[in-house]
Amino acid sequence: MDVMKASLDLHRQLKGKIKIENTLDIKNKTDLSLVYTPGVASSCLAIKENSEEAYELTGKGRTVAVISDGTAVLGLGDIGPLAAMPVMEGKCAIFKRFAGINAVPIVLNTKDVDELVTTIAHLAPSFGGINLEDISAPRCFEVEERLRKMLDIPVFHDDQHGTAIACGAALINAFKYVDKNLESAKIVINGAGSAGIAISKFLIKLGAKNLVICDKNGILNNDDPSLNSVQKEMAGLTNKDQLKGDLSVALNHADALIGVSAGNIVDESMVEKMHPDAVVFAMANPIPEISRERALRAGVKVYGAGISNIPNQINNALVFPGLFKGLLESRVKQIDDEMEVAACKALADLVTDETLSADYIIPDVFNENVTRVICEAIQHVQLSKI
Amino acid sequence: MDVMKASLDLHRQLKGKIKIENTLDIKNKTDLSLVYTPGVASSCLAIKENSEEAYELTGKGRTVAVISDGTAVLGLGDIGPLAAMPVMEGKCAIFKRFAGINAVPIVLNTKDVDELVTTIAHLAPSFGGINLEDISAPRCFEVEERLRKMLDIPVFHDDQHGTAIACGAALINAFKYVDKNLESAKIVINGAGSAGIAISKFLIKLGAKNLVICDKNGILNNDDPSLNSVQKEMAGLTNKDQLKGDLSVALNHADALIGVSAGNIVDESMVEKMHPDAVVFAMANPIPEISRERALRAGVKVYGAGISNIPNQINNALVFPGLFKGLLESRVKQIDDEMEVAACKALADLVTDETLSADYIIPDVFNENVTRVICEAIQHVQLSKI
Repeated sequence: MDVMKASLDLHRQLKGKIKIENTLDIKNKTDLSLVYTPGVASSCLAIKENSEEAYELTGKGRTVAVISDGTAVLGLGDIGPLAAMPVMEGKCAIFKRFAGINAVPIVLNTKDVDELVTTIAHLAPSFGGINLEDISAPRCFEVEERLRKMLDIPVFHDDQHGTAIACGAALINAFKYVDKNLESAKIVINGAGSAGIAISKFLIKLGAKNLVICDKNGILNNDDPSLNSVQKEMAGLTNKDQLKGDLSVALNHADALIGVSAGNIVDESMVEKMHPDAVVFAMANPIPEISRERALRAGVKVYGAGISNIPNQINNALVFPGLFKGLLESRVKQIDDEMEVAACKALADLVTDETLSADYIIPDVFNENVTRVICEAIQHVQLSKI
Repeated sequence: MDVMKASLDLHRQLKGKIKIENTLDIKNKTDLSLVYTPGVASSCLAIKENSEEAYELTGKGRTVAVISDGTAVLGLGDIGPLAAMPVMEGKCAIFKRFAGINAVPIVLNTKDVDELVTTIAHLAPSFGGINLEDISAPRCFEVEERLRKMLDIPVFHDDQHGTAIACGAALINAFKYVDKNLESAKIVINGAGSAGIAISKFLIKLGAKNLVICDKNGILNNDDPSLNSVQKEMAGLTNKDQLKGDLSVALNHADALIGVSAGNIVDESMVEKMHPDAVVFAMANPIPEISRERALRAGVKVYGAGISNIPNQINNALVFPGLFKGLLESRVKQIDDEMEVAACKALADLVTDETLSADYIIPDVFNENVTRVICEAIQHVQLSKI
């Protein structure tokens, strides 16, 4: 099957992957008077009296906005808001399918950081949470950080943290399988955009101490004047030997390579420089940094990727449905590191010692326990704070 | 039944009057690869190539945003965005019930005109049309006018134009019933907010030549320094004798009173000053300016109101579903006067000479032809322009 053509045909047929339905069948004027004027005034006044009532009397608490400016869509780059809509709708469909959450796609016709922050803050009251999506780095860091400070609903840039949590869970299990230690292992992250930076920060939270980040210009180091402010910060937190050079230098004796960069940029000779029992996650979409076949041929022990037709799919669809379900159901005002780590470990723990194998380090997205355990992990952390 | 209590209980039970559903059941990884990555990229690229494809490949063309800042909600006034949510959700439920349109409630946490315009313009790409709702006058006029110039999707402030179209249709039929002429009749509009101004402008488009507008400070006239710019403009276009005084002065020998003001502010003695065969539309919600019983006792021949438990309910729910259906299906870039007049006449024409009576000047909102004839009227005008 040509997935691109089949998908285009399907989109043309569906004309929208989500739709609105009413929760009550409006049959007559009495029904109308209850859902609309005059009866609706009673709910308005109850919320005016106590804003928390919005969670009881409207859909706010079950609804997430999936918001993008279309600047970093899939591997397609800055394609603009309108062209980003199919991705946002798809994300909303996944929210519904895996967590029963109502998600609304909103694409914004501005790339200005101040305008993005202001616009999203203005529309926030309608929603119980904000899922930022496909906003290019380093703008995405500032947008998220500012919104988290301003708003009383959780703001989560999925390309950063969803990817980091899924990747972290996969790496915990991969290292368990090859019997390596996250703290001492040398881990190379290729790609210093939103996902690469977030994965690096998250692995540090999980205990990793020997990270090397590469980007188009080579290994992030303190002497590189081309780095943006976030990359500069990461250059200081990683690369303990202050290596300089390209990805193939970075991969010398590395225990793991995490690719969040571009398709087909890694070859066998580079992978062969890694430690025995190497772990490679080639997460570029739609084409991985190196194919499973080539990686295994070059001696890689555990291979994972973002695409769906292989074992070990490392996909943030594993994370965001359960995560937002937990945030919404526990009415969390803002997500924190502890919740993200708990979600990651809960996801990893779904793979038991008995089921762990080179081809099974991360559960399948259709595993019906995934959403539940992540949701419960979030709720558990929230409960512990009360 | 206590409609306020019953409605509050219903809202508490429903926790949201609308919900999202997927248009495709995502059963397996193949489905996921079609609705999301990698397949979705084909639709993104098709839209990037040709923005019109967004109408074919996403839900944009079937989706309307119902947007408010919560400053003029029902008769409740400026209750804020969160407390306005139940009304916006109710409106969305009506969009679905009567026109099959997906409508998304969005309440905005700002009252600043510039910020409202910018925010709405930023989020517009996600939608096929914008229904502005419950924004206070005179801010609503500027917000709508500026957005109509900026955007390539229809922008419609329902409190203005939906009310005006429904009211116009009812008045056409009421005058037909009492055998009066719209051009020569003296028509008093009480209330110079968004609805009153819009009704006045619309009746002038329909041919009315003798309008008098009243507000809290009395009849709008050229010498009144308290008027806002829009009211000042209307003072020049109406009140041909430049009357001064209160509503009871205005009602002298009037043929029709259209109230869009507040409950119980008109009494029998005021109505008795009107011409024989007077028409009174007491459209204040939830309490009319004068009750049907009192109006009829004072000699009023045709009575209509906004509330639902009487004959002749003049409600914009008659208008906006079919109107947006027509706008979306014909992909109208911006609504114009001709379309509004056509929608009004189509609605009026549903009441035939045979069915016209004092108690039937306007069809019921559950009349299944209403949406269709208004939609067709819009489409007919649009076709005539090509």
